[in-house]
Amino acid sequence: MNKARLEAFSDGVFAIIITIMVLEIKVPHGDDWNALKPLIPVMMSYVLSFIFVGIYWVNHHHLLHTIHRVNTPILWSNINLLFWLSLVPVATDWMGDTHFASHPVAAYAILLLLCGFAFTILQLHIEKKIDKNEKLQHAFDMLKRKGIISILAYSTAIAFAFVNTTVSGCLFLFVSFMWFIPDKNIERALNEE
Amino acid sequence: MNKARLEAFSDGVFAIIITIMVLEIKVPHGDDWNALKPLIPVMMSYVLSFIFVGIYWVNHHHLLHTIHRVNTPILWSNINLLFWLSLVPVATDWMGDTHFASHPVAAYAILLLLCGFAFTILQLHIEKKIDKNEKLQHAFDMLKRKGIISILAYSTAIAFAFVNTTVSGCLFLFVSFMWFIPDKNIERALNEE
Amino acid sequence: MNKARLEAFSDGVFAIIITIMVLEIKVPHGDDWNALKPLIPVMMSYVLSFIFVGIYWVNHHHLLHTIHRVNTPILWSNINLLFWLSLVPVATDWMGDTHFASHPVAAYAILLLLCGFAFTILQLHIEKKIDKNEKLQHAFDMLKRKGIISILAYSTAIAFAFVNTTVSGCLFLFVSFMWFIPDKNIERALNEE
Amino acid sequence: MNKARLEAFSDGVFAIIITIMVLEIKVPHGDDWNALKPLIPVMMSYVLSFIFVGIYWVNHHHLLHTIHRVNTPILWSNINLLFWLSLVPVATDWMGDTHFASHPVAAYAILLLLCGFAFTILQLHIEKKIDKNEKLQHAFDMLKRKGIISILAYSTAIAFAFVNTTVSGCLFLFVSFMWFIPDKNIERALNEE
Repeated sequence: MNKARLEAFSDGVFAIIITIMVLEIKVPHGDDWNALKPLIPVMMSYVLSFIFVGIYWVNHHHLLHTIHRVNTPILWSNINLLFWLSLVPVATDWMGDTHFASHPVAAYAILLLLCGFAFTILQLHIEKKIDKNEKLQHAFDMLKRKGIISILAYSTAIAFAFVNTTVSGCLFLFVSFMWFIPDKNIERALNEE
Repeated sequence: MNKARLEAFSDGVFAIIITIMVLEIKVPHGDDWNALKPLIPVMMSYVLSFIFVGIYWVNHHHLLHTIHRVNTPILWSNINLLFWLSLVPVATDWMGDTHFASHPVAAYAILLLLCGFAFTILQLHIEKKIDKNEKLQHAFDMLKRKGIISILAYSTAIAFAFVNTTVSGCLFLFVSFMWFIPDKNIERALNEE
Repeated sequence: MNKARLEAFSDGVFAIIITIMVLEIKVPHGDDWNALKPLIPVMMSYVLSFIFVGIYWVNHHHLLHTIHRVNTPILWSNINLLFWLSLVPVATDWMGDTHFASHPVAAYAILLLLCGFAFTILQLHIEKKIDKNEKLQHAFDMLKRKGIISILAYSTAIAFAFVNTTVSGCLFLFVSFMWFIPDKNIERALNEE
Repeated sequence: MNKARLEAFSDGVFAIIITIMVLEIKVPHGDDWNALKPLIPVMMSYVLSFIFVGIYWVNHHHLLHTIHRVNTPILWSNINLLFWLSLVPVATDWMGDTHFASHPVAAYAILLLLCGFAFTILQLHIEKKIDKNEKLQHAFDMLKRKGIISILAYSTAIAFAFVNTTVSGCLFLFVSFMWFIPDKNIERALNEE
C-alpha cells in the first residue's frame, strides 16, 4: 500500500486543525484598538498552538519520508496521532479564554504529552518498516532522545502549572525550539543514500 | 478516468468530517477540572465517531486500492457514501448532548446502518470493475459477510436503544472491532498479484 | 503549468463547501423524534445543495480531464467558479431556515444561475486550450446546450419563486437530473483517443 | 525532500481560509430582500479577501513552480506565510462588521503588509535554491519590485485609514490589480527553459 493517501488525509487534517483554531478568535465588537485587547491571550495561545501543529506537520513530513509503503499499524497509529492533535484547538481555546489559568495550562501540557506519545508510537511502527543504514539509525536514535526530553519537559510543565504557569509556558517554548530543527539528521541520512 | 481526484476529494471530506466534530466540543467556562465534567459524554461520543470515520477511511483506502480507474457510477456511489458520513457529526452531537438518550442512540444506529448500505453499494460498483482472481474474490466475499453482520448488529442496536442503550453502545464497539482489521485479505490478495 | 495543484485546491474547496453546510444543521434540543421535525426543511435544502455541489464536482472533474496544462485565465475562471459556489451554503441555509419562502428560493436560483455562468466561462477558457477532435467537439457542444437549458430553467425558477416555489423546486431537480449524466460524451470521446 | 506535501498542505490551508470566511456571512433572519441589506458590507469585505487569498494562491503556485525540492527554511517560511494568511478571515470579519471603520481598515492593511513580508521571505528562500537563468532572474526582480510597491501601497493605506477609508480601499484594489497578472514572467521564463 502506498503512502500517498495517508499523506493526503493527514495533510487535510493538519490543515483543518491549524485553521479551525482561528475560528475561536471572535471578531471584536468595538471598532478601535481597545476592542483587540481581549484578543491578546487568545492570540498568544493561537500562536503557540500554530507553532506546535506546524512542528508536528514538519516532523510528520520527515518521518513519512523514510518509508515508501504503509501497513495497517502505521495507518492506525497515524489516526491515533491525528485524534490527539484534533483536541489541540479545544485545549488552546480553554487556555486562551481563561488567560492561562493553572488547570487549562496543565490540561494543555497533558494533551501535548499525549500527542508526543502518539508520535512516538507512529515512529516506532515506521522504524520497523525501514531498511536502516547507520546514519538513519542515528537519526532515529536522536528522535527518540528528543522524544524523551519532551516527555520530561511536558511532565515538569504539568507540575509547574499549579505553581507558576510562566515556567510551563517557557517549557512549551523550549520544546518548540528543540523540535524546530528536527530533520537535519533524517534529511542528511536520506541524502547520503 | 483515473482515481486520483476521487481519492483527493474523498480524503478532503473525510478530513473535514473527522475534524468538524471537534468544533462541537465547546470550550468549558470554568477554569478547573470540574469545568471539563460536562464534556465527558460529548467526548465519548466524539471518540466513538472518530473511530468510525477512521475505520471508513481505512476501508475506503483499501477498497479503492483494488481499482485503477473509476467510472460515473463509482463517482456517484462515493458521493452518496460521503453524504451519509457527513451527517455523522450531527448525530454524534445529538447523542453526546442528550447523554446517550434512547432516540439519539437509535438515530445514530440508523445513520451507521445507512452509511453501511452506502459503503456496500460503492463496494458492489467497484467489484464490477476489477479483474478478480480467486484471492481477491475471497477478500470481497469476506467484506460482504462483514457487511451483513454489521447490518444485523446495527438493526439490533436500533431495537436495544429503547431498552438498554448500553447494549447498543456495546454493539457499536463490536462492529468497530470487527472492521478494525478489514484489510488483511485485500492486502494479501493484492500483494500476491 | 500542470493542473495538479488546481485540482488539489479545487477539491479542497469543494470538500469544504459540501461539508460546512452540515454545520448549519443544528443539534436538536429535545431527545426524541419530535426534536428532529424542525430539521426537515433544513435537511431538504442540504440534500439539494449536496447534490448540486456534487454535480459541479463531477463535471469539474470531467472538464479538467480534457486538458493537461493550465494557464492564468483558467486559474482565475476556476477561482471565480469557486467564489460563487462558496456562497451556496449561505443561500442553502437561508432557504432552509425560511421553509422555502419566495425571496430565498429566488436568491438560490439566482446563485445557481451565476454558478452556471461561471462554469460556462471556465469551460470556454478550457475549450480554447484543447486539441479538439470531432467527438470532443460534439461533447463540448452538448455541454453548451445543457448550459443554455440550465440558464433557461433557472431563469424560470426565479420567476416562479414568487408564484409557486414548488415549481422552482421541480426545476432545480430537473436541472440536477439533466447534469447527473453529463460525462458520457467527454468520457467516450477521451476513451476513443 | 520533494515539494508535493508542501503544496498539498498549503492548498488545504488556502482552501480552508478562503472558505471559512463564508461562515461569517450569517444567514439573514427575514425572508425578503431587506434581510440581505446588512450583508452588503460583509459581502464586500468577503469579496476583497477572497480575491486577496486567490492572488496569494496563484502566486504561491507560480513561485513553487520554480523549484523541485524544498528544504527546512522553505517549509518554515511557508508556515509563516500561512500563519498570517490564517488571520485574514478575522480581519475581514472585523472590517465587514464595523462597516469599514478606521481602525479595522488599518488593521486589515497591517495584516496584508505582514502577509506581503511573509511572502517576500518565502520568495527569498526559494530564490536561493533555484538555478537562475537570465529570464528567471528578471522574473524574480519583477516580483521584488511588485513587493516593494505593495509595501508602499499598504503603508499608505494604513495612514489613510484614519483620514479616508475609501482611499485605503482603492489602494487595496490597486494592489490586487497589480498582482492579478504576476506570473507571465515566471511562466515565460520557465517555458523557454
